[in-house]
Amino acid sequence: MAKADIFSKVPELNYSEPAIETDFDAFKAVVNSRRSIRVYDATPIPESVMRECLDLALLAPNSSNLQTWEFFWVRSPEKKAELVRLCLSQPAARTAQELVVAVARPDFWKINRERMLEVLTQNGEKGAGYQYYNKVVILAYSLGFLNLMGFFKRLFVYFRGLTQVTPRIPTSSTELETWAQKSTALACQNLMLALRAAGYDSCPMEGMDGVRVRKLLGLPNAAKVCMVISAGKRGKNGVYGPRIRFDNSHFIHEV
Amino acid sequence: MAKADIFSKVPELNYSEPAIETDFDAFKAVVNSRRSIRVYDATPIPESVMRECLDLALLAPNSSNLQTWEFFWVRSPEKKAELVRLCLSQPAARTAQELVVAVARPDFWKINRERMLEVLTQNGEKGAGYQYYNKVVILAYSLGFLNLMGFFKRLFVYFRGLTQVTPRIPTSSTELETWAQKSTALACQNLMLALRAAGYDSCPMEGMDGVRVRKLLGLPNAAKVCMVISAGKRGKNGVYGPRIRFDNSHFIHEV
Repeated sequence: MAKADIFSKVPELNYSEPAIETDFDAFKAVVNSRRSIRVYDATPIPESVMRECLDLALLAPNSSNLQTWEFFWVRSPEKKAELVRLCLSQPAARTAQELVVAVARPDFWKINRERMLEVLTQNGEKGAGYQYYNKVVILAYSLGFLNLMGFFKRLFVYFRGLTQVTPRIPTSSTELETWAQKSTALACQNLMLALRAAGYDSCPMEGMDGVRVRKLLGLPNAAKVCMVISAGKRGKNGVYGPRIRFDNSHFIHEV
Repeated sequence: MAKADIFSKVPELNYSEPAIETDFDAFKAVVNSRRSIRVYDATPIPESVMRECLDLALLAPNSSNLQTWEFFWVRSPEKKAELVRLCLSQPAARTAQELVVAVARPDFWKINRERMLEVLTQNGEKGAGYQYYNKVVILAYSLGFLNLMGFFKRLFVYFRGLTQVTPRIPTSSTELETWAQKSTALACQNLMLALRAAGYDSCPMEGMDGVRVRKLLGLPNAAKVCMVISAGKRGKNGVYGPRIRFDNSHFIHEV
């Protein structure tokens, strides 16, 4: 089956999952009341709520379902104190009840490709979906030894792209990182909205030492810290001011 | 005021924004029922719903509030047909009622820094917040002519980082892109959840020709397509199967 068919043909399925009823106003209340909180009060977050919100993070869509993410809920007092220091001791970290490190794992495409093949084999799927993970995923995300394959992919994508519609697959480790970071950020937004929906608040922090955070967690170089998310209930002076968004016409265009 | 103080000191504020009541179950229903939809039915999405969901996207948190994102709702039949082709004519694109291109704009940090300074000046803010945008933002996000400043920042960050906690600010155009892509992805997740909450469905697509999409929209090289999001109501065979997520223990760690 040609590569294009995998994307363009609708498979014959014996599955349906009807859309359930949802409450738009309830959702809007969550989005509208989510503010980045810089100071938290002393209210703890129940363990069960943290676990539920983390589980909801993993339901975000992600590229090719390769789940290139990891979430470290830093609970030990020593590690937590060190993590606060690595977040420059900013109030959003040092007053937080809980701290979660979101990590992009570009390298996870390999193991999760294998896991996908296992699941698809169990389901008796041998068609386009199986072929996608068996072949296309390797071509799309491999970089090879010393990025050699990435280099040839870059040439291939460039020249093919001159005349044909060509997906711009990752051709370097930084492009592969960007790819994984995007999926991780989608999950981060689920996590922050979930915390708000459960009655708590959060703050995403990029003002931190990602290299030291990675070492604190004992992670390999391939792991890239996406952001540190603090959580708790908003305290006095926790919101620094009314939300500032510039006119939507700068950002939303109907063309 | 030293840079560290900007991060670590809590300003004296005359502002409060209490957390409003939220409905966790309603939120969970939105997250649980959001599936990537590959085939849509013929139900149109009202314009007002699209606009409201796009507005909700912009309420996502984003790095230093520099709003490095843009959303193109592609409505003209010619552009839409071409966009479908650039998405490899995959069913998620060609059966979609609406298509939105999410674009990361790393270059927007400059104009939005100026907009932030304007707003802060109007608010009479001359303290740490103003200084952050006046000085720190330039140091953090400038790359300079031919990336010269980026190069010196890389050296500085590396050597400073050997002995001190050092935020790993962007030091190359690809790092700046990753930084902008993360914020854009946070907004994308808001958009997809908003569509689901409003009774509609979506699919994020990265299997597309981002270079040609950028040209279709008349965007400069600095603009980087994050993903194309299709929207509509799920049709027959629209969900390709039960959601596959590997065991959470692979991704969530309590440390």
